[in-house]
Amino acid sequence: MEKRDESSVKLVGFWVSPFVHRVRWALKLKGVEYEYIEEDIFNKSPLLSELNPLYKKVPVLVHDGKPLSDSSIILEYVDQKWRSNPLFPDDPYQRAQAHLWARFADEKVLESAWLALCSEGKTQERAVKQAIENLEHVEEKLKGKRFFGGDIIGHVDLMMGFISYMLPVWEEVGGVKILDPHKFPAIAAWTNNFLNHEAIKAEYLPPTAETSTYFQWRRKELIPVYASYGQ
Amino acid sequence: MEKRDESSVKLVGFWVSPFVHRVRWALKLKGVEYEYIEEDIFNKSPLLSELNPLYKKVPVLVHDGKPLSDSSIILEYVDQKWRSNPLFPDDPYQRAQAHLWARFADEKVLESAWLALCSEGKTQERAVKQAIENLEHVEEKLKGKRFFGGDIIGHVDLMMGFISYMLPVWEEVGGVKILDPHKFPAIAAWTNNFLNHEAIKAEYLPPTAETSTYFQWRRKELIPVYASYGQ
Repeated sequence: MEKRDESSVKLVGFWVSPFVHRVRWALKLKGVEYEYIEEDIFNKSPLLSELNPLYKKVPVLVHDGKPLSDSSIILEYVDQKWRSNPLFPDDPYQRAQAHLWARFADEKVLESAWLALCSEGKTQERAVKQAIENLEHVEEKLKGKRFFGGDIIGHVDLMMGFISYMLPVWEEVGGVKILDPHKFPAIAAWTNNFLNHEAIKAEYLPPTAETSTYFQWRRKELIPVYASYGQ
Repeated sequence: MEKRDESSVKLVGFWVSPFVHRVRWALKLKGVEYEYIEEDIFNKSPLLSELNPLYKKVPVLVHDGKPLSDSSIILEYVDQKWRSNPLFPDDPYQRAQAHLWARFADEKVLESAWLALCSEGKTQERAVKQAIENLEHVEEKLKGKRFFGGDIIGHVDLMMGFISYMLPVWEEVGGVKILDPHKFPAIAAWTNNFLNHEAIKAEYLPPTAETSTYFQWRRKELIPVYASYGQ
């Protein structure tokens, strides 16, 4: 008898994508078993267009045969379907605040850090300045707390997770300094708490050497693309 | 005795902002009374920085003295606090899909239409092409339906609402054609359903002449800024 797909969980990802790592962490926290499918994002499969016609991007979660995209939206869905280790607070205002910080992670922190990786000269100087300003807000938010929501890991931690392991690689590859631990002691403490959380430790992260090689290549390719960005 | 502020609803907005109009519509749908505070976004008040330190943008909803920003996040909060006329479906998958289309409204549809308004030449041609491609997805989604979620107005309709009344002004000011009713009959039908919905009809929208004058000025100011965008 053929195995039926309807109650399965599949994740379409790309090994070095910080957006995909968020979903892997969430599924690990929830104890959900899934099949991982690696997508070549530089030579996209027809499957990806079919599963995510609006964006054609990873990650895509396929649950009970139904596809869902966007890491933040997937995390909220996963939290509603599997209730152990809740990622969001119940209170509507606290919940809305978590959504706001999650957006800030993508639209501001990741955006400015990515530009710092993929630029040089004045554009890079501006990007580094913006990344530091964004992290000042994060530092303020984290002060005196173990995780963004307090004692327990949650949605904002997973959304900001790239700060802990990927941003240091981007700094090195881009030849910039953003994450000064003297300037950002609360972020440094959180990084430690985050990477030592048992669900995060247990999940796959790509080796630093391969990650570094990959982003050296991306930096080289993207410098001309971002050369006039914001000028 | 001084009037206490804790149970009040205030909305900080800007008269012509499509992001603010979404919140006004949601509050009208829910029957929530509120105080509207107009912000001069070109000469921002200290109040705005205090209420929205991460983005310093409108809209900001202040409920029980607590501020909240980002139109999509505000809409979800409003829906959770006032349960009449639900804006979201209950089913987690349908809910996630609504979030996805709401993101598509901002990140793709509005973004490309805005660029078409604020550019010229090759940049504008590309933006118009992208806007039309984005609307092809919207057309497909709306086919055979009164509103995005079916028979009842909801979150995605409010997020896409700018297509109905503001995009035509942008087309005229930008001197471009995007919304061809022969190409997009489902969007044309939805526009009619949307603008004739009693909550939308009852809510303030800025007069077309003033809106047009405002965006003529914005177009002129922003053409140099976007001149090299995406090149």
